[in-house]
Amino acid sequence: MLLPTPDTVVSVENVDGCRPFVMVCEHASNEFPAPWGDLGLSAEQRQAHIAWDPGALSVARGLAWRLDGPLIAAKVSRLIYDLNRPPHAPSAMAARSERHDIPGNAALSPTDRLARSNAIYLPFHARVRAELVRRLAQGQSPILVTVHSFTPVYDGQPRSVELGVIHDAAPDLAQAVLAEAKAQTIMTSRLNEPYSAADGVTHTLALHATPLGLLNVMLEIRNDLIATPESQNEMAAELAPVLMRALNRLEGA
Amino acid sequence: MLLPTPDTVVSVENVDGCRPFVMVCEHASNEFPAPWGDLGLSAEQRQAHIAWDPGALSVARGLAWRLDGPLIAAKVSRLIYDLNRPPHAPSAMAARSERHDIPGNAALSPTDRLARSNAIYLPFHARVRAELVRRLAQGQSPILVTVHSFTPVYDGQPRSVELGVIHDAAPDLAQAVLAEAKAQTIMTSRLNEPYSAADGVTHTLALHATPLGLLNVMLEIRNDLIATPESQNEMAAELAPVLMRALNRLEGA
Repeated sequence: MLLPTPDTVVSVENVDGCRPFVMVCEHASNEFPAPWGDLGLSAEQRQAHIAWDPGALSVARGLAWRLDGPLIAAKVSRLIYDLNRPPHAPSAMAARSERHDIPGNAALSPTDRLARSNAIYLPFHARVRAELVRRLAQGQSPILVTVHSFTPVYDGQPRSVELGVIHDAAPDLAQAVLAEAKAQTIMTSRLNEPYSAADGVTHTLALHATPLGLLNVMLEIRNDLIATPESQNEMAAELAPVLMRALNRLEGA
Repeated sequence: MLLPTPDTVVSVENVDGCRPFVMVCEHASNEFPAPWGDLGLSAEQRQAHIAWDPGALSVARGLAWRLDGPLIAAKVSRLIYDLNRPPHAPSAMAARSERHDIPGNAALSPTDRLARSNAIYLPFHARVRAELVRRLAQGQSPILVTVHSFTPVYDGQPRSVELGVIHDAAPDLAQAVLAEAKAQTIMTSRLNEPYSAADGVTHTLALHATPLGLLNVMLEIRNDLIATPESQNEMAAELAPVLMRALNRLEGA
């Protein structure tokens, strides 16, 4: 089995952005490249939120350019490997997602799991680490922002929250972002909703921000609000100053 | 400046060891390879504990073979890069250690710090991560053990502790190791001495064990107890069953 190179699983944009925010988008893509292929899913399933976070890449890109920081994004579907999960989590290569069986993940051997972990998880997170280390070694203080979207209705249950602001161990930046989001936007914004670190959704923050003592936040945007290029652009334009002011709030404190 | 390849900064032994203990020795070496060289230190300084943890590699190797797990060890002095520190810690490339100035670290530029971080820190910790991920993806539960030694007299102050058992966030394994060390050895063994996570000495554990939820412990052995090949071998023979029984104690709980 010929495995892809790191370039085919991770992309980096605006790498020379010199401001502190480092954007990461683990669920950016609904691509199903060789050697894994479509996992037996229909075209409709491959477009659905189970395969990726619709709209998240575009918002993350808009934030990266507005905030002049880099963006590190996945180029493979979360159903092949969910980069916000460690390799021993069943959801890293989920056999079932919401109400869908994932045929290509039904009977993975330890060798299959290792191959995906080596081909996708390790190079993606090595790239994130390298970008943070590059800035730290040069005396900068990078800030990790992961950008996600969530479905308005999950397993039949509607969700009223529009912007979820989630943190790993240190809540500082998330609390400041929430305060600014409430002050500056009309979105229904809530801390640690629709899920939180206790649900295992902050792996990227736990892996990169917490051990290095970096400010961090995970943004979860309800995907019906970012369904078009126009609304994605507007969301980035709305959230960029929220992040900037949140940082100013912390630095002024 | 031609930088070394990963093979010249990190070694892996017993990679096919199939038991859960994964040994890491960040301060194994007092080598000062090109392009960094001796940093202006005397031969005596390069032999002293400021340059490495004397005896630690040999004990770690003895543990790896007895416990049938891998050993990942540094091949460069901690004074070139201290692999148990993040790149923004001043002590990662210390300008002064105990009572010694380190001339080659006195005026490092951001570019110098980045070059050392990229050449030493990133590949070393990528290798540790890859080894843990290899085991996790295949359904094993690796246990991270870092092996260190400390000087009996630091900055004029004698230290009575002989075995320090240190943990990052989760104390479980360290507490069990301490109990077994007290039960099975005559060493003066203490938890979180001569220093603890609060002193920033658990970076490797924080980077690799805590975010993945792995059992972890840092062993600190007073270096006068492991000054010869014979005493290093005896120490490994004494500590291997301590680790095994500590694990049994946790698994039986």
